[in-house]
Amino acid sequence: MLKDVVRTRSYQNVITQNSFLFKDKIVLDVGAGTGILSLFCAKAGAKHVYAIECSQMADMAKEIVKKNGFSDVITVIKGKVEEIELPVPKVDVIISEWMGYFLLFENMLDTVLYARDKWLVDDGVVLPDKASLHLTAIEDAEYKDDKIEFWNNVYGFDMSCIKKQAMMEPLVDTVDANQIVTNCQLLKTMDISKMSSGDASFTVPFKLVAERNDFIHALVAYFNVSFTKCHKLMGFSTGPRSKSTHWKQTVLYLEDVVTICEGETLSGSMTVAPNKKNPRDIDITLKYSIDGHRCKVSRTQQYKMR
Amino acid sequence: MLKDVVRTRSYQNVITQNSFLFKDKIVLDVGAGTGILSLFCAKAGAKHVYAIECSQMADMAKEIVKKNGFSDVITVIKGKVEEIELPVPKVDVIISEWMGYFLLFENMLDTVLYARDKWLVDDGVVLPDKASLHLTAIEDAEYKDDKIEFWNNVYGFDMSCIKKQAMMEPLVDTVDANQIVTNCQLLKTMDISKMSSGDASFTVPFKLVAERNDFIHALVAYFNVSFTKCHKLMGFSTGPRSKSTHWKQTVLYLEDVVTICEGETLSGSMTVAPNKKNPRDIDITLKYSIDGHRCKVSRTQQYKMR
Repeated sequence: MLKDVVRTRSYQNVITQNSFLFKDKIVLDVGAGTGILSLFCAKAGAKHVYAIECSQMADMAKEIVKKNGFSDVITVIKGKVEEIELPVPKVDVIISEWMGYFLLFENMLDTVLYARDKWLVDDGVVLPDKASLHLTAIEDAEYKDDKIEFWNNVYGFDMSCIKKQAMMEPLVDTVDANQIVTNCQLLKTMDISKMSSGDASFTVPFKLVAERNDFIHALVAYFNVSFTKCHKLMGFSTGPRSKSTHWKQTVLYLEDVVTICEGETLSGSMTVAPNKKNPRDIDITLKYSIDGHRCKVSRTQQYKMR
Repeated sequence: MLKDVVRTRSYQNVITQNSFLFKDKIVLDVGAGTGILSLFCAKAGAKHVYAIECSQMADMAKEIVKKNGFSDVITVIKGKVEEIELPVPKVDVIISEWMGYFLLFENMLDTVLYARDKWLVDDGVVLPDKASLHLTAIEDAEYKDDKIEFWNNVYGFDMSCIKKQAMMEPLVDTVDANQIVTNCQLLKTMDISKMSSGDASFTVPFKLVAERNDFIHALVAYFNVSFTKCHKLMGFSTGPRSKSTHWKQTVLYLEDVVTICEGETLSGSMTVAPNKKNPRDIDITLKYSIDGHRCKVSRTQQYKMR
């Protein structure tokens, strides 16, 4: 993931160019991994950085911190945020790279909110502090045939029952911007410094307007994050028109092929919630309809990210 | 994996073109997945096929068998080979697609041998019945830099301790045939119809002779399988000179960059064994040395596939 240049360079630029946020501050790095963000913060003048990491990578992070001469500034704590003790009562800054596929997959946001409520001072800073989910629609005949319709005839056999399951699995893949048929719509904005855990479950309406005559095979979701406490607004987008990241985009195939004319609207709603059994998985319900010149459809589809 | 055409077409051709092996026979499909091999066998005239699959896919396989009208010929049994009961005392044919990365990763071969010893009639047929492991050496400066040396300087920090770990992890990747510097050597042949479980642990010598002046950054292992009971010899290779498969090749990076001249020999031995704690993982020990015109090296390296 360090090789995702958009991701790591964005954090590096935020930290390096805004040392006023870190100078002499106590910083908490939630899910520190190799400790790269903690190292950036230490270099930017943090008084102390607590880097929490629950995987084996914590041992590597300790070695890396030592090797790079930051043992007196960075303390790596191996354990779960919900279970560990911090040596200080409060921190000034929480930094984390918690975003998963479709923003919310694997639900690490909950851990950041837990850390915020437990340790962040009243006027403390969360980085990033804004995240937004966006939706657009694409033409994708070739890949839908390859990934979904494939199951209709597999070496001469009918495996269409697998097709039903494949349809329910959002596909994480890179979408070519030329496939976009409609506008891109902001679905939901989250303020990480204020929101509660329950705000990650929501139903939001959408209206996608066709920018050309085309077919729609799938809706595509992606997210942006921003750091609004910087000297100037900073952040990055994982949308199909931006430089690609390891998050790619999330493709939700539609059961119907929608024939849409320029100016017509595909409207509906998206419901997002963590799965009740496995809160790291996400359930998505999509309702969509079009009452168009060449196509009338109204349907509800369920998806499970797992 | 059904989309791995080399793999699935090979099995399809073996079964379809050699119906004499299946006609009126009782067949056991070990690790049946979607049931595709069982369907091929049923179509080729098998008297009955028992398809064992331990994952949720077994439910899909049942539905697929029914949908395609083979319910009276194919019985899908959901469970582990080591735990289930077969409705018949013996089978005439065992077919399985058990091969993992580096042939042996995930150790499904053991399950096939268990099924063979328990259920196969004395003159029964195992498909495939031969598998072989091969070794060659490649020049790979660019990717070694990207995957291994990368850790020396990560956004200005020294993460070389991760490099040590990265070196120990065999990399499953597609190798360009133009990178091959030496001959390709057969390391080990396994006769699936006769071998015992312990034969999957072995130490074998190798001698790789350079075919040009070049550098060697890695050794590359791959496997071939064959079906010698067919009317004519059939099988496929997963080597870098063959059409690529989902198994790709397995790259073992060397700590040294070996400077080798045409005709010189890199020799040594490879020890392969399932990990004692996790028998599905594989431990590999590589000893290699060269006493060449421009390079003298002698080293032992450990790898863990997990």
